[in-house]
Amino acid sequence: MLEQKLFQLLDAGFEEIVAIRRHLHQYPELSFQEVKTPAYIASFHEKLGHEVKRNVGERGVVAVLKGGKQGPTIALRADFDALPIQEETGLPFASKVDGVMHACGHDGHTATLLGLARALNQLQEEIKGTIVFIHQHAEEYAPGGAIAMIQDGCLDGVDVIFGTHLWATIPYGEVQYRKGPIMSAVDRFEIVIHGQGGHAGTPHLTKDAIVIGANVVTQLQQVVSRRIDPMKPAVVSIGSFEAMNAFNVIADEAKIVGTVRTFHEEVRDEVEKEIKHLVHTICDSAHAKATVTYERGYPAVVNHSAETDFLRTCAQSISEVKRTEEMEPMMGGEDFAYYLQHVKGTFFFTGAKNPAWDVAYPHHHPKFDIDERAMLIAAKVLGKAALHYPNISREQ
Amino acid sequence: MLEQKLFQLLDAGFEEIVAIRRHLHQYPELSFQEVKTPAYIASFHEKLGHEVKRNVGERGVVAVLKGGKQGPTIALRADFDALPIQEETGLPFASKVDGVMHACGHDGHTATLLGLARALNQLQEEIKGTIVFIHQHAEEYAPGGAIAMIQDGCLDGVDVIFGTHLWATIPYGEVQYRKGPIMSAVDRFEIVIHGQGGHAGTPHLTKDAIVIGANVVTQLQQVVSRRIDPMKPAVVSIGSFEAMNAFNVIADEAKIVGTVRTFHEEVRDEVEKEIKHLVHTICDSAHAKATVTYERGYPAVVNHSAETDFLRTCAQSISEVKRTEEMEPMMGGEDFAYYLQHVKGTFFFTGAKNPAWDVAYPHHHPKFDIDERAMLIAAKVLGKAALHYPNISREQ
Amino acid sequence: MLEQKLFQLLDAGFEEIVAIRRHLHQYPELSFQEVKTPAYIASFHEKLGHEVKRNVGERGVVAVLKGGKQGPTIALRADFDALPIQEETGLPFASKVDGVMHACGHDGHTATLLGLARALNQLQEEIKGTIVFIHQHAEEYAPGGAIAMIQDGCLDGVDVIFGTHLWATIPYGEVQYRKGPIMSAVDRFEIVIHGQGGHAGTPHLTKDAIVIGANVVTQLQQVVSRRIDPMKPAVVSIGSFEAMNAFNVIADEAKIVGTVRTFHEEVRDEVEKEIKHLVHTICDSAHAKATVTYERGYPAVVNHSAETDFLRTCAQSISEVKRTEEMEPMMGGEDFAYYLQHVKGTFFFTGAKNPAWDVAYPHHHPKFDIDERAMLIAAKVLGKAALHYPNISREQ
Amino acid sequence: MLEQKLFQLLDAGFEEIVAIRRHLHQYPELSFQEVKTPAYIASFHEKLGHEVKRNVGERGVVAVLKGGKQGPTIALRADFDALPIQEETGLPFASKVDGVMHACGHDGHTATLLGLARALNQLQEEIKGTIVFIHQHAEEYAPGGAIAMIQDGCLDGVDVIFGTHLWATIPYGEVQYRKGPIMSAVDRFEIVIHGQGGHAGTPHLTKDAIVIGANVVTQLQQVVSRRIDPMKPAVVSIGSFEAMNAFNVIADEAKIVGTVRTFHEEVRDEVEKEIKHLVHTICDSAHAKATVTYERGYPAVVNHSAETDFLRTCAQSISEVKRTEEMEPMMGGEDFAYYLQHVKGTFFFTGAKNPAWDVAYPHHHPKFDIDERAMLIAAKVLGKAALHYPNISREQ
Repeated sequence: MLEQKLFQLLDAGFEEIVAIRRHLHQYPELSFQEVKTPAYIASFHEKLGHEVKRNVGERGVVAVLKGGKQGPTIALRADFDALPIQEETGLPFASKVDGVMHACGHDGHTATLLGLARALNQLQEEIKGTIVFIHQHAEEYAPGGAIAMIQDGCLDGVDVIFGTHLWATIPYGEVQYRKGPIMSAVDRFEIVIHGQGGHAGTPHLTKDAIVIGANVVTQLQQVVSRRIDPMKPAVVSIGSFEAMNAFNVIADEAKIVGTVRTFHEEVRDEVEKEIKHLVHTICDSAHAKATVTYERGYPAVVNHSAETDFLRTCAQSISEVKRTEEMEPMMGGEDFAYYLQHVKGTFFFTGAKNPAWDVAYPHHHPKFDIDERAMLIAAKVLGKAALHYPNISREQ
Repeated sequence: MLEQKLFQLLDAGFEEIVAIRRHLHQYPELSFQEVKTPAYIASFHEKLGHEVKRNVGERGVVAVLKGGKQGPTIALRADFDALPIQEETGLPFASKVDGVMHACGHDGHTATLLGLARALNQLQEEIKGTIVFIHQHAEEYAPGGAIAMIQDGCLDGVDVIFGTHLWATIPYGEVQYRKGPIMSAVDRFEIVIHGQGGHAGTPHLTKDAIVIGANVVTQLQQVVSRRIDPMKPAVVSIGSFEAMNAFNVIADEAKIVGTVRTFHEEVRDEVEKEIKHLVHTICDSAHAKATVTYERGYPAVVNHSAETDFLRTCAQSISEVKRTEEMEPMMGGEDFAYYLQHVKGTFFFTGAKNPAWDVAYPHHHPKFDIDERAMLIAAKVLGKAALHYPNISREQ
Repeated sequence: MLEQKLFQLLDAGFEEIVAIRRHLHQYPELSFQEVKTPAYIASFHEKLGHEVKRNVGERGVVAVLKGGKQGPTIALRADFDALPIQEETGLPFASKVDGVMHACGHDGHTATLLGLARALNQLQEEIKGTIVFIHQHAEEYAPGGAIAMIQDGCLDGVDVIFGTHLWATIPYGEVQYRKGPIMSAVDRFEIVIHGQGGHAGTPHLTKDAIVIGANVVTQLQQVVSRRIDPMKPAVVSIGSFEAMNAFNVIADEAKIVGTVRTFHEEVRDEVEKEIKHLVHTICDSAHAKATVTYERGYPAVVNHSAETDFLRTCAQSISEVKRTEEMEPMMGGEDFAYYLQHVKGTFFFTGAKNPAWDVAYPHHHPKFDIDERAMLIAAKVLGKAALHYPNISREQ
Repeated sequence: MLEQKLFQLLDAGFEEIVAIRRHLHQYPELSFQEVKTPAYIASFHEKLGHEVKRNVGERGVVAVLKGGKQGPTIALRADFDALPIQEETGLPFASKVDGVMHACGHDGHTATLLGLARALNQLQEEIKGTIVFIHQHAEEYAPGGAIAMIQDGCLDGVDVIFGTHLWATIPYGEVQYRKGPIMSAVDRFEIVIHGQGGHAGTPHLTKDAIVIGANVVTQLQQVVSRRIDPMKPAVVSIGSFEAMNAFNVIADEAKIVGTVRTFHEEVRDEVEKEIKHLVHTICDSAHAKATVTYERGYPAVVNHSAETDFLRTCAQSISEVKRTEEMEPMMGGEDFAYYLQHVKGTFFFTGAKNPAWDVAYPHHHPKFDIDERAMLIAAKVLGKAALHYPNISREQ
């Protein structure tokens, strides 16, 4: 059976996957500054004889494997950028680039996809349809690489897309999925309150930007508590409040910066609208003005229903997968969201917490690491999905 | 008549007063760093034959003129420190010290008192009682020089004290007085809210220091609106709110710094108590902790009633004084307050705004200046008070 | 096939179901005051030869149909109380009881279950296991009838329970289901703030219960916005704020009454705890006291996963069911919740909105009505579940 | 000396003053319902031969005593209405009118003025100028009688006005005065918030009038704390918050009623403007509307400076007056304010607390009473002012 052949090839290729990951880990590149990594990837696929496009959406790489049989076009995506973090793992293959680190597992994603590409390549004749390997740059930094790669055609002709995230706090052996919203939209807002400063002893001659700012923060709580459908999660959090002056002065200006997390576009729209309305009316109540900037980051990742059911079925029968679990949505962003706005597909999480670890350092932590065996699971789930999807899609 | 003689001496000595003021203006010294100024003052009095104590309360100067007749001991006070301000007046006698300026008129106060000392010295035989010239350092910077000079005995044996402030925004020719509270107590508080930071998407795992801080600022408004006798003025103003983090993080800590202005000790006590209570309970409501530091600055300047009536009467009949006016209390501090906690007396304001000026730059402004003729008025009012008080005090 | 026989019997018995519903509709009885309705139900089952217990949990009726074959015990539940509403439908079979109306469809639930009981009774020999008909009183009024009926043994020996709600705003032909939380816990709280009244002109001598109450209302918004997992819905709403005094008086007391809706017990616990903590600390901040009463109503209805999957499968293949749909959780209470705390099962919604209606009056409205054909769907889904569950349960 | 004669006449007439007061006390009449009292007063003056106008401003009485010598026109005012209070003093001369009581001392004011009128009448030939006795109805109930009496000419030709309030909590023997604002303006406001009600479980479909109302109450605190000159007292107090609904409903409407107390017209204007602005903007922030009604009651009583000095001098040398004291302004209204907007004058307080009393029941209390000897002091101060004012006024 084809699936068995694939799994044997992957088992055999696991050492190479680990080697690739460790190589990439030593030479991380920041978002929108990736040069060597895409070159490495493109070269890898070229050696396999895949059709390769470089500089897709500026820095991405797209490789195509045409199967020997008729079938749909299936995309598999891995991101490859790193983070501005100084690694503290002490690993032998730790980052050799000062202040830059693969602290989110994208090295693993890329290694997984390359290893899988080699294995699938060897089964080319038996494969139904076409497999598109999307190697994306700049996932960590909005506006992200996905949107540019899509504009540059990476999804042209694609019927379905699958992607995964190795996750350091989910136990190795577990695969987590979810229909519908699985990762939140992540927006950023900045409010500058333009009051009128003055002497602390004569508040009536001022428009006290700190008091107005406090009113704004307090009232913003009511966006979530009163203005949003309680069934649709939303978070409005403020990270920064800045209004520093002498103790005996009333502040001229206050700057408030925060983030909004939502899972439904209509809630996102509503929260943005309400924040702006609320800030302006509260400032008006104190005769002050405000500037509100609302920057939309990635939208919510909304998995398609049938593809998620399919993926879960694929994962369940893989021997290394001990458990498949519907997960709660996560309050973080991921620009995989954009692919799912264009084609069907699903994004899932592959547990990468080594059972021997007492502590699993979270993503973006200087001591972040993964259980490398998770890459094998990820490769098998994605590979199986690529092999079987043609059967599923025909039925539909 | 004695008063007439004094006024003639002062008129004749006015040129010297101006010269002294301009000299001091060129060589300003910061609070608690005064060296040349007290030396100059001490030397001036010594040449007049007054008994002089140097280094009173570390940097102050006290000079004593014993009158030829029996009578009470009357203190006259002038402060002599300058401010860390870069002068921008362009005057020929502008500060020669970089970044230091007599921007509050203390040079004028000192010149006035020295000029008056010379005049009174010439009337020594006819003077009833003793006149103590208190030249105080460090009025601008809490804890101020007054408290140390008092501890060092400058008020020993003193029956009454008078002092004035030349005021650049009150028209020349006007003297302003007020019974009871005339300048506010000035206190400083610092609140540090100790919350618990975290990810913006999981507020329930945090104690959001910014939201708690906003609650504190909002609730602090109720100290003035609900907890203080509305007949007794109080101001609670916040100058600084500092909690700077990334947009997607919830703040661990917020620092709030502000000031309290009051005119009655019981209100001051109440406000301090209420701020502390309110901060701790509001933090408790969000399971957070706070550190509250409340530093008392100068207390309110509370003028004595009979001495104020007396002073006003003295001022009214001086020909240069065109108007005496009861003033509204001012929301600023002045360590003359401490003298009035020990002995009777009054503190008044002498108008020093030149009628030809379009704009009178306020105190502590780099372009601050005074109408120097105001020094003559100040000297005559203080001198007349010193001469006549013995008559008044006998009656009481 | 057994299912076919059942459906034919129900089709044939539909006229009787309608007649029963219309009879009950004319003689509605309020919660905890039901006398004629349970007597009617008990008598109906007795005539069928079912074993009947009256006065279960005081007013409920439990009837048992023992199948001819071995199998599990399956409970089907219908509630039968009415509401204190004056009917305004103008229907020929409108309520004959002044001020009381079946405005929530419980008449339909009961008629459905009785009609189904007659049909199943005719298939007795072929039925695997035992079917328990739970006719519950007092669903509309906490603490509800379910809890008493359970204490009185109505679930003894029961393996699984199914129940449905005819729903006037879901289109006829639709069945809605949901795994996990489907209806919220409904709690009630009452806060009395004990301040200290006084003259409007001397707020500092009072503890202003209205201002404190406003603080409490404002701060309560932060329970939802900051203290609860944003992924787990919760609502804190206030219905009543009562503090009426003369315009020139400061309030002694304020009474605040509201409700909490949650879907997870740990969130419910947290909200209760936070409300109490917040009220007491906020009152403390103003030196006042509060009494907080928190009354738990029905818990959340939490459907079991496998039973919900099963139920949905049963519903999907019934010809009258045009659509099965996963629904959003509803913010209302239902004491079916208690049954699901003791045995497995699921509660679902059967669409009862006539497609010809322009407006579907909502439940508890004086013009509320249902499309009676929905009762046939409900009977078929429940009946099919009763017949097939034995097969499912064996597999597990 | 004239003053001596007057005092002897008053001493002799004191019994009659007491008798008049006790008579009036037994037959109190509510504001704007006075019939017998003005008739009694008018008749008293007519018997003395004074020129009397009845029904001035509808119910007031104005009597004129023309002195034998040239001089200014001096008005003395006493109010004569009672309160809707059931007396509980148990005095032999307690009110004979059910539910109506002279619980504010206006009976004493009237008796004082009538007794003084008889005494002055006997000195007619020696009096310089004209004395106008203004007996005012309806002081207790806005818009009050003063405004109507003024419109009806009671101040025509008047040069100065004096009035006093007997005060039950100021010790007998004390006279309290104050220059400038002595009693506050008293305004009433009513805010109706028009939200949009709904189900407690779906706040996002509503505009929650209670939460909006709480925001309004909280923000109103900032009118006093931030928008008003801290040197000029102002109080904004809310007496009533009314929004009563079922616990599971969100309020459609909330009604907030309160009062504003100020001492300066510009502050009064500012507070009115700010309340309106704040309510409308806060409601706007929640997409709701509000109706705000602001009703101005009496303005502040603002005593004229020279007249207050004069009055104090008059009071100081009366033997029964043991103490004259500058008082703090009071947070209550008095329509004497209107007279002082038209002519010079002063309003003062005459201590009426019997030294033997343990408790002095406050004004408007069912057990309120006065030390009747205070009427003699009031008569002497007012009478002396009437006799001496001509001398003062000539000098000015």
